Amino acid sequence: MAIKAIFFDIDDTLYDSTKLSTFARKNSVDAMIDAGLPGSSEEIYRALEEIIDRFGANYGRHYDELLNMLGLTWNPKIVAAGVVAYERTKVGYLKPYPGVVPLLLKLKQRYRLGIISNGLPVKQWEKLIGLGIHHLFDTVATSGEHGFKKPEKEIFDFAMENLGVRPGESIMVGDRLDTDILGGNRAGMTTVRLRRGKYADREPAGEEQRPDHEISALSEILEII
Amino acid sequence: MAIKAIFFDIDDTLYDSTKLSTFARKNSVDAMIDAGLPGSSEEIYRALEEIIDRFGANYGRHYDELLNMLGLTWNPKIVAAGVVAYERTKVGYLKPYPGVVPLLLKLKQRYRLGIISNGLPVKQWEKLIGLGIHHLFDTVATSGEHGFKKPEKEIFDFAMENLGVRPGESIMVGDRLDTDILGGNRAGMTTVRLRRGKYADREPAGEEQRPDHEISALSEILEII
Repeated sequence: MAIKAIFFDIDDTLYDSTKLSTFARKNSVDAMIDAGLPGSSEEIYRALEEIIDRFGANYGRHYDELLNMLGLTWNPKIVAAGVVAYERTKVGYLKPYPGVVPLLLKLKQRYRLGIISNGLPVKQWEKLIGLGIHHLFDTVATSGEHGFKKPEKEIFDFAMENLGVRPGESIMVGDRLDTDILGGNRAGMTTVRLRRGKYADREPAGEEQRPDHEISALSEILEII
Repeated sequence: MAIKAIFFDIDDTLYDSTKLSTFARKNSVDAMIDAGLPGSSEEIYRALEEIIDRFGANYGRHYDELLNMLGLTWNPKIVAAGVVAYERTKVGYLKPYPGVVPLLLKLKQRYRLGIISNGLPVKQWEKLIGLGIHHLFDTVATSGEHGFKKPEKEIFDFAMENLGVRPGESIMVGDRLDTDILGGNRAGMTTVRLRRGKYADREPAGEEQRPDHEISALSEILEII
């Protein structure tokens, strides 16, 4: 059956989310130190990572919790310094992986394009808009909007239904074996694993996580289709 | 008695807050239209202003309410487009009034400097940090932190106590007669009105709002002290 639609994950698939988060957090730590936070860059960065692990990346009060965890009085100057540095790093560094935009423009001439992403809908849209690629997708399915998250089959089914395509006509591209590939396989799609970012070294935990194809740059997708 | 400390309001006193908000809102409206919001720039801008009036400037869901008010289904693409455009405008355009930084550096050699501001502490600190002037102030008093707001005398007293100065040794500079000047007068400070921004045309509503001095650019403060 001919391929009609290609679905993508966002983070670490369309842009280097791991690098951006690391930069933004390091800059926020340095800005908080500049604003009076005592301690070394390294130890505060580790504490911040622990807080992000504990409260999740979308929690709104990481820096308040950081002061709390370090046994310090709440200080709006320090919190604001962290927020401003984080936001400015995001604005400055948010860029698609090299070659992603030309590739999407090329694919768009022959295929319908979609996003299947775990996260809050407004946050995920902010990424697509910040990356300047929000007009390129015919459907965007986020777990926060639909109540199902990858690897649950339903979010993949929903995205395919939106474009009126069947699993045999669909490709799912993503960096994570336990969400993108596992879910795409369950939904009956052709799965393509992009080996990049923080999960690059993982191997499939069983047959269900095995991708149909593996690539190391998104442009290699042209050789598959 | 010799002047020892100068206290400033932030919005429309140290930077052109009215212009920045207007730009940021207009850019957010255009971005939402680009993301699919139906309607003209002018009518959507007016609706947004109404929502900001109704819910306040610090409410976190202006764009969600805008869709609601326009009778449209909630749409994360449109909300995110508004958020991204607003934030990016803020980052790009947030600058002190011309001459403010050299003036503050000059004043800092002879006086202690403070901020007395109505607003949420983290938000007001974000402005000072974004403006790059957060290291120049010896004290920052925000209404959100202290429970009193201008023109209540207590927030002025608190800021002066923090610097160990008396009202007769203190100047309050601000653009608003009904908060900065009224409160500064009540606290017994020398008051300086900066006639700029959206309140530039107002006249004092009674003796209590009459400033000791009036200036049209912050640098004129050098002629007063």
